[in-house]
Amino acid sequence: MVPDSRREEQPLQVLVVGAGAIGGFYGARLAQAGAQVSVVVRSDFDIIRREGFHFDSIDGDFTFRPEAVYGSPVECPTPPDLLIIATKALPEIDLIGLIRPVVGENTTLLLIQNGIHIEAPIAEAFPDNTLISGLAFICVNKTAPGRIRHLCFGRLAIGRYPQGNAPMTERLARLFESVNVPCSITDDVMEARWRKLVWNAPFNPISVLAGGVTTREMLSTPESISVIRAVMEEVLAIAAADGYPLEKELVQKNIDDTHAMEPYKTSMLLDYESGRTMEVEAILGNALRLADHYELKAPHLRTLHALLSLAAR
Amino acid sequence: MVPDSRREEQPLQVLVVGAGAIGGFYGARLAQAGAQVSVVVRSDFDIIRREGFHFDSIDGDFTFRPEAVYGSPVECPTPPDLLIIATKALPEIDLIGLIRPVVGENTTLLLIQNGIHIEAPIAEAFPDNTLISGLAFICVNKTAPGRIRHLCFGRLAIGRYPQGNAPMTERLARLFESVNVPCSITDDVMEARWRKLVWNAPFNPISVLAGGVTTREMLSTPESISVIRAVMEEVLAIAAADGYPLEKELVQKNIDDTHAMEPYKTSMLLDYESGRTMEVEAILGNALRLADHYELKAPHLRTLHALLSLAAR
Repeated sequence: MVPDSRREEQPLQVLVVGAGAIGGFYGARLAQAGAQVSVVVRSDFDIIRREGFHFDSIDGDFTFRPEAVYGSPVECPTPPDLLIIATKALPEIDLIGLIRPVVGENTTLLLIQNGIHIEAPIAEAFPDNTLISGLAFICVNKTAPGRIRHLCFGRLAIGRYPQGNAPMTERLARLFESVNVPCSITDDVMEARWRKLVWNAPFNPISVLAGGVTTREMLSTPESISVIRAVMEEVLAIAAADGYPLEKELVQKNIDDTHAMEPYKTSMLLDYESGRTMEVEAILGNALRLADHYELKAPHLRTLHALLSLAAR
Repeated sequence: MVPDSRREEQPLQVLVVGAGAIGGFYGARLAQAGAQVSVVVRSDFDIIRREGFHFDSIDGDFTFRPEAVYGSPVECPTPPDLLIIATKALPEIDLIGLIRPVVGENTTLLLIQNGIHIEAPIAEAFPDNTLISGLAFICVNKTAPGRIRHLCFGRLAIGRYPQGNAPMTERLARLFESVNVPCSITDDVMEARWRKLVWNAPFNPISVLAGGVTTREMLSTPESISVIRAVMEEVLAIAAADGYPLEKELVQKNIDDTHAMEPYKTSMLLDYESGRTMEVEAILGNALRLADHYELKAPHLRTLHALLSLAAR
């Protein structure tokens, strides 16, 4: 009988669906760790097939040449061991229809997206596959076709959805750590998502709505800090109603940590400034649908959501 | 003894301080009605002295050549019968210091500005002068130096501050009506200001914050209508606490009326797009200071105010 440790010697077969800045980055790191990584790209197909991805990274520049470059998942001949889903979390993308042709019996799904309550539809569509949910703490953006700038951070937090652990989380963490990508495993990834939303819910929308401002500027007036704080408290209330009570100190901690950071443009502001679609629903809309469900008012969050939905048109 | 009716035959001596689009327009109309109107302008001094103001008006184009054009009120040799204050309502303008040199014993003050609770400092500084507060329902904007476009409406509502009547309100109404400017007299101008704020408080800020949208677009999503409604209800609550209970139906009426209007860019959006200072404090800040005073939360209004204050920087 082949022991488990032998089986892990086989390179991991990975397919990245939505290989933009985030998907491209983590796919590239897994390739550096010895996995065989193919990608599905929506744009820049020709240049990526010809030249791969080039990363201008704070950790040292590098190039990533995928095993194969596809224009659609259906082109992939065999289901991968690991399917990384790194498309943007947008309602208009039929994610399940997109990936169904390439999800095999033994395919593990790794979702690396922003937002809250974004896993349920995937878990329902593929109930027999392991689903790992991942949060990326990273600043990366595309600067030209096939060219990605990695500005700061890079940490991943991953956990089996809806909770617990899976052998693949351990294996992924080992692979990522072997190429200096910090990767923590959480037993409660839903809680981790709520935690991240406490920051995202105020800072992402306000950076856009206030006319394109940095984190530093958002913390420059007492009125703005007061609204940021109120939005965070509303997120805490929704999270608690949803079964994820978080410590109240998180509000002050997030504000203090953001004060300590270099002034930073949020990913939503970068999307807005580049004319790309913003993840309004995954970040704010889903939280407000839960607020409706639990009959919570969340007036500050609702104001941001309404304004941002208009601004997104 | 000279009867009152004879005394009114003397042309009214008028000085307009802040003769931009609004002050220029109403000054011009009074001149057409037979008043002797001089102006103080902040910009475009030379061209206005040389050529006057030219109006491209829906009611027929016209030119207005003031009796005198000053760069500052101190240059005006004698106090006028009527001093029209039509500067923008901005905290950084020392309005009282500006007009003090030209306010005589018999000068009536007419304030034509946006906002709420903007009269008190003037009434305190000139307790022995009649103060008339005026609301302009008009779309006018400057298109070039000395050139003003009058797009729609034109109605004035005037009333003695803090309430009641004065001979000058009657005289002004007669003069304006004689040149087809509808002018209604109100016994309770504070209430009229609260009424106007019910519309201004949501539509002005949202038009800017949602990325530059018209009234029509602001009414295009249920979430946005819901926030507009919530802001209006918060204004009604502050007005009621301040002694001005308004009918709740005003919320729906304002929404219906705005639906019926042609899509329209608010004055705040026009200011923002032209890089001019927005009247954030007169419109939102003053209302929120009253909310603080009466311990009202007004979370939607506070969110708009905080975002707009950031956007204004």
